[in-house]
Amino acid sequence: MTQHDCMIMHYRVNDIPVGVLGASGYAGRELCELIVRHPHFSLAFATANAQRGQAITIGSQEIAFLDPESAPIHDVALVFSALPHGASLPWVQRAHDGGARVVDLSHDLRPGNGNSQLEAVYGMPELTVSARAAIRSARIVANPGCYPTCILLALAPLVAAGVVLPGATIIANAASGVTGAGNSPKRELLFGEVAEDFRAYGVANSHRHLKEMNATMATLGADVDLVFTPHLLPVARGILATITVPLDRALDDPLSLYRDAYASEPFVEVVSGEPRLSDVARRNVVRLTATMVVGTRTPTLLVRSALDNLVKGAAGQAIQNANLMLGLDECAWLPA
Amino acid sequence: MTQHDCMIMHYRVNDIPVGVLGASGYAGRELCELIVRHPHFSLAFATANAQRGQAITIGSQEIAFLDPESAPIHDVALVFSALPHGASLPWVQRAHDGGARVVDLSHDLRPGNGNSQLEAVYGMPELTVSARAAIRSARIVANPGCYPTCILLALAPLVAAGVVLPGATIIANAASGVTGAGNSPKRELLFGEVAEDFRAYGVANSHRHLKEMNATMATLGADVDLVFTPHLLPVARGILATITVPLDRALDDPLSLYRDAYASEPFVEVVSGEPRLSDVARRNVVRLTATMVVGTRTPTLLVRSALDNLVKGAAGQAIQNANLMLGLDECAWLPA
Amino acid sequence: MTQHDCMIMHYRVNDIPVGVLGASGYAGRELCELIVRHPHFSLAFATANAQRGQAITIGSQEIAFLDPESAPIHDVALVFSALPHGASLPWVQRAHDGGARVVDLSHDLRPGNGNSQLEAVYGMPELTVSARAAIRSARIVANPGCYPTCILLALAPLVAAGVVLPGATIIANAASGVTGAGNSPKRELLFGEVAEDFRAYGVANSHRHLKEMNATMATLGADVDLVFTPHLLPVARGILATITVPLDRALDDPLSLYRDAYASEPFVEVVSGEPRLSDVARRNVVRLTATMVVGTRTPTLLVRSALDNLVKGAAGQAIQNANLMLGLDECAWLPA
Amino acid sequence: MTQHDCMIMHYRVNDIPVGVLGASGYAGRELCELIVRHPHFSLAFATANAQRGQAITIGSQEIAFLDPESAPIHDVALVFSALPHGASLPWVQRAHDGGARVVDLSHDLRPGNGNSQLEAVYGMPELTVSARAAIRSARIVANPGCYPTCILLALAPLVAAGVVLPGATIIANAASGVTGAGNSPKRELLFGEVAEDFRAYGVANSHRHLKEMNATMATLGADVDLVFTPHLLPVARGILATITVPLDRALDDPLSLYRDAYASEPFVEVVSGEPRLSDVARRNVVRLTATMVVGTRTPTLLVRSALDNLVKGAAGQAIQNANLMLGLDECAWLPA
Repeated sequence: MTQHDCMIMHYRVNDIPVGVLGASGYAGRELCELIVRHPHFSLAFATANAQRGQAITIGSQEIAFLDPESAPIHDVALVFSALPHGASLPWVQRAHDGGARVVDLSHDLRPGNGNSQLEAVYGMPELTVSARAAIRSARIVANPGCYPTCILLALAPLVAAGVVLPGATIIANAASGVTGAGNSPKRELLFGEVAEDFRAYGVANSHRHLKEMNATMATLGADVDLVFTPHLLPVARGILATITVPLDRALDDPLSLYRDAYASEPFVEVVSGEPRLSDVARRNVVRLTATMVVGTRTPTLLVRSALDNLVKGAAGQAIQNANLMLGLDECAWLPA
Repeated sequence: MTQHDCMIMHYRVNDIPVGVLGASGYAGRELCELIVRHPHFSLAFATANAQRGQAITIGSQEIAFLDPESAPIHDVALVFSALPHGASLPWVQRAHDGGARVVDLSHDLRPGNGNSQLEAVYGMPELTVSARAAIRSARIVANPGCYPTCILLALAPLVAAGVVLPGATIIANAASGVTGAGNSPKRELLFGEVAEDFRAYGVANSHRHLKEMNATMATLGADVDLVFTPHLLPVARGILATITVPLDRALDDPLSLYRDAYASEPFVEVVSGEPRLSDVARRNVVRLTATMVVGTRTPTLLVRSALDNLVKGAAGQAIQNANLMLGLDECAWLPA
Repeated sequence: MTQHDCMIMHYRVNDIPVGVLGASGYAGRELCELIVRHPHFSLAFATANAQRGQAITIGSQEIAFLDPESAPIHDVALVFSALPHGASLPWVQRAHDGGARVVDLSHDLRPGNGNSQLEAVYGMPELTVSARAAIRSARIVANPGCYPTCILLALAPLVAAGVVLPGATIIANAASGVTGAGNSPKRELLFGEVAEDFRAYGVANSHRHLKEMNATMATLGADVDLVFTPHLLPVARGILATITVPLDRALDDPLSLYRDAYASEPFVEVVSGEPRLSDVARRNVVRLTATMVVGTRTPTLLVRSALDNLVKGAAGQAIQNANLMLGLDECAWLPA
Repeated sequence: MTQHDCMIMHYRVNDIPVGVLGASGYAGRELCELIVRHPHFSLAFATANAQRGQAITIGSQEIAFLDPESAPIHDVALVFSALPHGASLPWVQRAHDGGARVVDLSHDLRPGNGNSQLEAVYGMPELTVSARAAIRSARIVANPGCYPTCILLALAPLVAAGVVLPGATIIANAASGVTGAGNSPKRELLFGEVAEDFRAYGVANSHRHLKEMNATMATLGADVDLVFTPHLLPVARGILATITVPLDRALDDPLSLYRDAYASEPFVEVVSGEPRLSDVARRNVVRLTATMVVGTRTPTLLVRSALDNLVKGAAGQAIQNANLMLGLDECAWLPA
């Protein structure tokens, strides 16, 4: 294994109050579970709009959903917002104005989404060598999208190594479990519609996550076009991205490139076998591999990258960012 | 709809005896079901090696599995061989020598698989304008693979129209249900291993179906490289291929190109929405759509193509070929 | 096999116009598919409330959903109502007043549901020796519920044979696929909520179908109490009922009792193996078996009964009833 | 909540060496994962027969499978045997003779299975008030079966309270995920055979677990007959039992009876809602509820009981027993 393990933690009292806005969705619920198990955090509040007044049980702790308006967002050290895209921004502003640090899981403040009134740091610690330091000092972190986390961590080492063919078209196919679409009742997400089925959606570069990826790739200095095609899988959780990258030269050992790039990352696993959803379920990791394709005139690298869309693709990465922002061990209580 | 419907059939007696070698697998079983419902065929025998002596019930008809050695392969008009790859060839030879026509579902005689001692016609009626005539007069038909049927029917009209960028790399990602891997007991195909999971396999152009596709693309005159990456889906049946094709110019209306190409084909559906597995389950059709990708410097077409791997990808196409070989209505009794 | 096969049908023109009220649900859609394939029926209209103006494609036939108010319910020979429970009754009345025969798939007119203003015949042809004749002459048929069909056909022969222990408690556990709950978007029916899960619902005799079963058992002369516990399965379609019946004496050969009772029924399969959902999927059959339990002081029979909730449990049985009402072959075009 | 939480543990060094015989099956693998995360245990060895020489990765720890013959079974404090039924007994004897404590997950030493040469304590700590003390002092513990754990913990409080109708027949229907059948490759456990399906098996009291339940019920002093019918669910893990119990009188508040019985049990959850598999997945708990059935002449209680067959039904309960045997906190590191 090239990765470093997180240090074993020593229990302390749960002395850091945090809150969750939008706790009734799948990501918000996952956040609450991770917070309840976290050795340093105490869950001061969890809000839900339609389900306010209801409660969920995590382990033996009962958590009542507050109306967001009545949540003590100024009495916590950090607010996680898992509010719907579009609705999050004003609450991030409010929490920030009140002095709390914020991790925003919506796309409102992510690169390429055009909101400039609030300055947010993009919260993908493994993306560049300087990413972690920026997150540590950030007041607001835009937590990355699930697809971008899976795909950008597969591409960044190639861009950094300068091996991508300039002007090339990178094809990023990805398939996600249904929790990526949230738990609002929609006919197309019913069991009877999803089971035994599979289909693309958001095709031809119409999915919103493309903007986030294009803007980030530009900041990395990549001169490429992306074709991003997401698909809906009949599974609850997990994303697998299968990415073909034209290179300017064949790589003898593409895995070494990735192993070097992620040698000290506890949450990126570079493996020689095929990453699969069951490898990453309920864990805060990206697991990836890469192979040169045989028989093509343009040297072509095939990268496969997997994560749990609710953990490393959402709530787990949010905890990781919060750990960094609050000066804690980055790995605290994350299932790696 | 651009397609022509099959003519409504009039019942006749089941006057054409046919047999199935290798009837205990998923494709063989599907063949038996289609034969039992076919208005002209009578199932003279079905063989199975490990399960000989056992029987299956289709509708109210009980079908006993014979030892292949005791099957009357010379007393039938046509033999379907659904024997395992590698084991099929000698039985095809035997049946052929005895005077029967043969539809071979293995890859033993498909293009690119290097068996030249027996001359077989590749049985994909919609592939070219002359394909159907060749099948009609063939004594032996090599029934295409499931992935090649799904992918080649998506590519052939583009090659015929001369719009593919010469020397380009075509990326064909595909995902298949588990029946594509057969019903021999293997740990990696257990429910506990496949459910809630998804992974690639046969990556980097190592899957055998690539040879069949490359050889066929060459006969079509295509100057391209293929990158083919199959994936295993947690569904029983169905394949969806998502294919990106660099073009030499943007197409204003890619659907028209496909609609024109397949205007008279009863088993190809060109649609404007997203093809999904449930659209094609238990039907002898390929369903496809195509969209120009936004925002790439190289004009890029995104094609999505779906079929049922056991029907149009195996047993249904075999019946379609048998219908042609025996001078019957091509559509006879196929679920379109 | 003890069953008689349906006679092979000869094609005639589709000369009997029928209509479907409430065609957008799972049962309504299944009805439309069976009607389109039916040799005698032509689908004159299909209505949908929320989805009016939309269309579905069945085979190559496009079917537009009408507003119910504009449907020509008086110009058809027979109206199928797949409207929601409670909403169906006034439409049944209207269709009946206009002279059409009606098959009502809601529970509004089923036994035990307390609507006496309209006289309906309970449409389970195999229930008693006189059931079929009553259906043939009925103007309105109440199509049975899915659970009652599965359970009552498992119990009726025992009651008729007088072997049930008087005053006994019969335990009927059943598990159903999610299409039994319809396709209205509800959170608890999302893929993410149903997959990898299983639970009871409508427990302690609170499910509405119990009334239908109790009322029917009373008409059969049974002196028993039923405990009915339905469960939600992570499958799309199918019901399996597992029923324990205290008997007044042990039966040497319980299968013979069932085989005799259903000897001339084309849509009841008495088998010696375990009925499973895949045996009955997309077929208009009930498949059942029965075994004496070992080691109990009270002689106890264990019956397992399976059907497809959308076919024999809804649309298929509706077609079967319509065939009888219109003097057609009962089996016409039903997938047995 | 009536339950007591486990005390929060303080980390100590992993100072207790334990070993796992038969680590390649689902239960063995789950055991290894729980041991690796356990604060006091170190995994000294894991054996596998067919897969010896292979390795699995748990978190960042690689675990190589030894040949059982070369495992240092005498150098550990406790041996878990997850060997196949029948093969376990001689290894339990060997480990015991060498001085190790043993938790045997096979049925070889469970009540009703007829092996008397080795004295084992039945390891279900919540079954009776004296069970825990017996386990603490045991050298060999027979870890209960998954179905018996689910069903006996639902029945024991009723027997202890003396409310079950003497001589009555208790009907225990249960449905299990496929991991309960192990991961040996068998055709009937392939994804293509299990998905979208459901069926009973081991019917009419032929399942081996019935003996374990009957023998245990006898020791509890129950005068009842059991009818046990297991079913195979298309899910990976989890068991739900639905149990009908004739009572000698109606209970006003059956939940209170259970809440009192399990008031101090950390791993039994008595709830008012419907237990479902997702409530108990990956947790070492039994979750149950009970309701008086309406409308039956014999007062009848309907109990629903759920657990994860690999955790509380196997590996989790094994760790719980090992914790007791070794004088550790019973809850150490178990996911409750």
